[in-house]
Amino acid sequence: MAILQPLIDLAAICFEKGIRHVVISPGSRSAALTLAFVRHGGFRIHTCMDERPAGFIGMGIAQQTGVPVVLVCTSGSAAYNFAPAVSEAFFQQIPLIVLTADRPKEWQHQYDGQTIYQSEIYGKHVKRSFEISPDYAHSDVQWAINRITNEAVNVAGTAPLGPVHINVPIREPFYPKESDELLRSDSIRIIQRQRSEAGLSTETWHELLDEWDDSSRILIAGGQQRSSEELNQVLARITEEWDIPVVGDCITNLGANDQFVRHHDLFLGGENSAELRPDLLVTFGLSFISKELKQFLRRNPPLRHWHISEDIFLADPTQSMTRQIPVSATYFFKNLYEKIDYQLFTQNSEPENDSSYLTIWRQKEVLSRNLKRNYLQNLTSLNDLTSIDVFFKVLNAQIQLHIANSMSIRYVNVLGADIGNAKIFSNRGTSGIDGCVSTAIGAAMVNDQPTFLIVGDVAFLYDRNGLLIKELPQNLKIIVINNSGGNIFRMIDGPTGLSELENYFETRHSFTAKRTCEDSGIQYFSVNEFEALEKVVAEFTRSQGLGLLEVFTDPYENERVWKELKRLGRES
Amino acid sequence: MAILQPLIDLAAICFEKGIRHVVISPGSRSAALTLAFVRHGGFRIHTCMDERPAGFIGMGIAQQTGVPVVLVCTSGSAAYNFAPAVSEAFFQQIPLIVLTADRPKEWQHQYDGQTIYQSEIYGKHVKRSFEISPDYAHSDVQWAINRITNEAVNVAGTAPLGPVHINVPIREPFYPKESDELLRSDSIRIIQRQRSEAGLSTETWHELLDEWDDSSRILIAGGQQRSSEELNQVLARITEEWDIPVVGDCITNLGANDQFVRHHDLFLGGENSAELRPDLLVTFGLSFISKELKQFLRRNPPLRHWHISEDIFLADPTQSMTRQIPVSATYFFKNLYEKIDYQLFTQNSEPENDSSYLTIWRQKEVLSRNLKRNYLQNLTSLNDLTSIDVFFKVLNAQIQLHIANSMSIRYVNVLGADIGNAKIFSNRGTSGIDGCVSTAIGAAMVNDQPTFLIVGDVAFLYDRNGLLIKELPQNLKIIVINNSGGNIFRMIDGPTGLSELENYFETRHSFTAKRTCEDSGIQYFSVNEFEALEKVVAEFTRSQGLGLLEVFTDPYENERVWKELKRLGRES
Repeated sequence: MAILQPLIDLAAICFEKGIRHVVISPGSRSAALTLAFVRHGGFRIHTCMDERPAGFIGMGIAQQTGVPVVLVCTSGSAAYNFAPAVSEAFFQQIPLIVLTADRPKEWQHQYDGQTIYQSEIYGKHVKRSFEISPDYAHSDVQWAINRITNEAVNVAGTAPLGPVHINVPIREPFYPKESDELLRSDSIRIIQRQRSEAGLSTETWHELLDEWDDSSRILIAGGQQRSSEELNQVLARITEEWDIPVVGDCITNLGANDQFVRHHDLFLGGENSAELRPDLLVTFGLSFISKELKQFLRRNPPLRHWHISEDIFLADPTQSMTRQIPVSATYFFKNLYEKIDYQLFTQNSEPENDSSYLTIWRQKEVLSRNLKRNYLQNLTSLNDLTSIDVFFKVLNAQIQLHIANSMSIRYVNVLGADIGNAKIFSNRGTSGIDGCVSTAIGAAMVNDQPTFLIVGDVAFLYDRNGLLIKELPQNLKIIVINNSGGNIFRMIDGPTGLSELENYFETRHSFTAKRTCEDSGIQYFSVNEFEALEKVVAEFTRSQGLGLLEVFTDPYENERVWKELKRLGRES
Repeated sequence: MAILQPLIDLAAICFEKGIRHVVISPGSRSAALTLAFVRHGGFRIHTCMDERPAGFIGMGIAQQTGVPVVLVCTSGSAAYNFAPAVSEAFFQQIPLIVLTADRPKEWQHQYDGQTIYQSEIYGKHVKRSFEISPDYAHSDVQWAINRITNEAVNVAGTAPLGPVHINVPIREPFYPKESDELLRSDSIRIIQRQRSEAGLSTETWHELLDEWDDSSRILIAGGQQRSSEELNQVLARITEEWDIPVVGDCITNLGANDQFVRHHDLFLGGENSAELRPDLLVTFGLSFISKELKQFLRRNPPLRHWHISEDIFLADPTQSMTRQIPVSATYFFKNLYEKIDYQLFTQNSEPENDSSYLTIWRQKEVLSRNLKRNYLQNLTSLNDLTSIDVFFKVLNAQIQLHIANSMSIRYVNVLGADIGNAKIFSNRGTSGIDGCVSTAIGAAMVNDQPTFLIVGDVAFLYDRNGLLIKELPQNLKIIVINNSGGNIFRMIDGPTGLSELENYFETRHSFTAKRTCEDSGIQYFSVNEFEALEKVVAEFTRSQGLGLLEVFTDPYENERVWKELKRLGRES
């Protein structure tokens, strides 16, 4: 038996448990892990020399498949370069198995190369952190590695999904002999964790429906979640049949249904919105993008607030929660609909819902949608907002859309993500600007749909090393909105008037994406005048294969356009 | 008083305590810190939009000045992007004050943007980790922030130097009003920690000199340290006058003295080196580069081993230490020299040193130096080793030389760093390939000397975002040795014969540095044939301002040249 047999078995267990993608950053200490996954033969292996984008590429894959992706790196600071992706995966609830090769503990702080303190290096940003022993010849260690691998994959893949870390100390010699076959042991044991679905008892439903019946102004609001046709259908019925407003950000992925409220970023900014206050607020999903929505709800707290989520932690961003309901949103709303629809529990024949409440929300929504439409129609400058709007108009196919943090996601949200049934993703777990490019690359790799990324110049440059991987997916199209710096600092309250704005916040630059594209063999398009915009966007979207369109806009004009739209929204 | 007055005072205290450089990555949550340092007026502020290179740029500055550099970032994953530089600074003992803006604790895990678990985020890789309270109006908090700032700078600047983290939660509103003047308080208190120098008592010297006198074969070996003229002078006397061999890697910075042993990488690889075994080994500095030296000493342990270092931790990489001597190397060797020279303590008129021991070492050294010289003279291909050798020949000015990890540092060490009195730096704290470019950028910024970086293609690409900072230093010249991938995997034992070598270890690519140079306005030179090498290197080194020379070499030829030289060394 090869001395590193337990690591060969680790890879085999990962495969048996359904893992198919492995992202490897090359290293020597990690050679045994690399070989175990490569020689298994069943995995799709992606290599990336820089661990930071490698981590996000893995995350992008797992974001799509919902199945854990394995990350492999060598010992030392390599492990820290995975950390930005690990923390994003933790808060965005994306399953990863992070395997960090390590020197044995006895070499810590012994002036040895690539040896740092790797145990629990990701702090609270993993669901669990394991440490294996390098005594691979001991039968207890063999049992432990088998068991830990099973547990790690089970934990990563159980809701809420998330990253799990296994630190893997390896002693020399760690390269196999040529005669070593690296076959899995016969004794591998797969420990299945059965799937279960959380449900609510009849008693609980009675309690809930009592509160529901007591509420005449009910608001449903969704945070970030993966697109779910089943959920969207039941929510559509609830809003249609029961006159209950359903609000969602672009990352709530409610789809192309104009009955939902999606322009709240515009109309909730004003002061006089108390008439929109709900008695009962029902939320689901992760974070809201809309600061306006959060602040509106904090200013106008509901009497009762149910949050539907299987998470054990208590996130209460609107400062109003009264019940955590630990089931999936689809289970909850489908059961709710059926129970009320068939009058299984309600005393009254009809819920006592105040239909004028929906009317107010819907009027605001329609007003804002029209306001936005008219405003955009009259703009004749090339600016960030117009660019995204034109892009939305040109594209009406079934696409997947990734939006970078900072201004990009704010633009898309204020536009109500008016782009058909596009599935929308954004790294809103930690909302960092790091990793947006690499996440989209990973997502495109496992995705048959055309995959678009909208990203600002700073976020693009920050993560350009994602483009160093060998095989870039051909279904990826990147739109870089280049406003020469961190334009967001001109948009938000606070820094606008500061004399330090340009040098210490925006950090103006004159970089473009052109040469980075040439380096990576990416077809490059650019536009810098309004008149050409629609034509170039159409050309770009029709072009075959991997491409990047860079739109050059003026930071002052962007500021004017954005602030004017927000003002109009507030005053509407 | 501005609500954030304690942060204005924090900056003022940093200045009073001698800090002059601040590296800022822009952010909104960190705005108060940014403004406090910028408006102070006394700091040199460097901005870099990507925190990963920003951290290393700060480290490069502190590596030169020995004075802590302040790093500032916003909340969230930004803090994790500093981590690679923080861990390198910890093990390389470089002083940093890492200020991470944070949301107040109450927003942790509340779906709030850029909010992660930042307390103690750098684990054991900081000398100390502080957390301040966001209740800036409370007098105890004001006192604490003042005290903590004093303590942080004192701790970072006390041997062993290193990074200190202060996590800075900040509540809204965090932008100042226009009327706020941001002046320091009158009540700022500076708490000086007096410098002290550790010394040894007469009794201890007696003990040590008894052992010294007992030893006839004494070897002095240095690890990584900053160049010290004073230390090198006394070591030169010791080797000259007492026939004691002094061995040093390129990062020991022993200077251009052929009496020192610098080609041990070549001759210690052989089996028959037991005659070189010392009775007493005296070491100083941090890590050895030379695996040959470490392994030789492990195979041939001395009877006694003194390690001279003020560090409290016990690093024993040769597995032979018997005494830790917690004083500076300069203090130790100067006192040793004087005490023995003036016969203050020795019973014998002359130490009983076996002069044949030096002779053996010196013969080996001279043989290896000649072997290397002859070998290189006969090479007519363009390869990594020849390129560095030609570079050393052409350059004989007073320069500062940064060497990236992976093969670059191994080449320079095997060549005995034969480049006059160049000061040599390399990130050997964690020996990662991350951050080599940015460290050199930071070093060049505060340095009047021509500053050269030798870096492989992978390490260059990994850290190319360091080139995104606004003002690149004009005294920096970068030599990229482009062998199309991670050539090191072809050199070390283990992966050479694997069928996975090219795809999963080397990760071959066809990227060049040319377009990255054009993007950053860096003059670009390249060479791809042996005949042109010397001329192009001369042109490059004579050129004015910031430049980059890319040498294209063949990975197979590099492997042949390296392995043949190592073989000749072993067999010599």
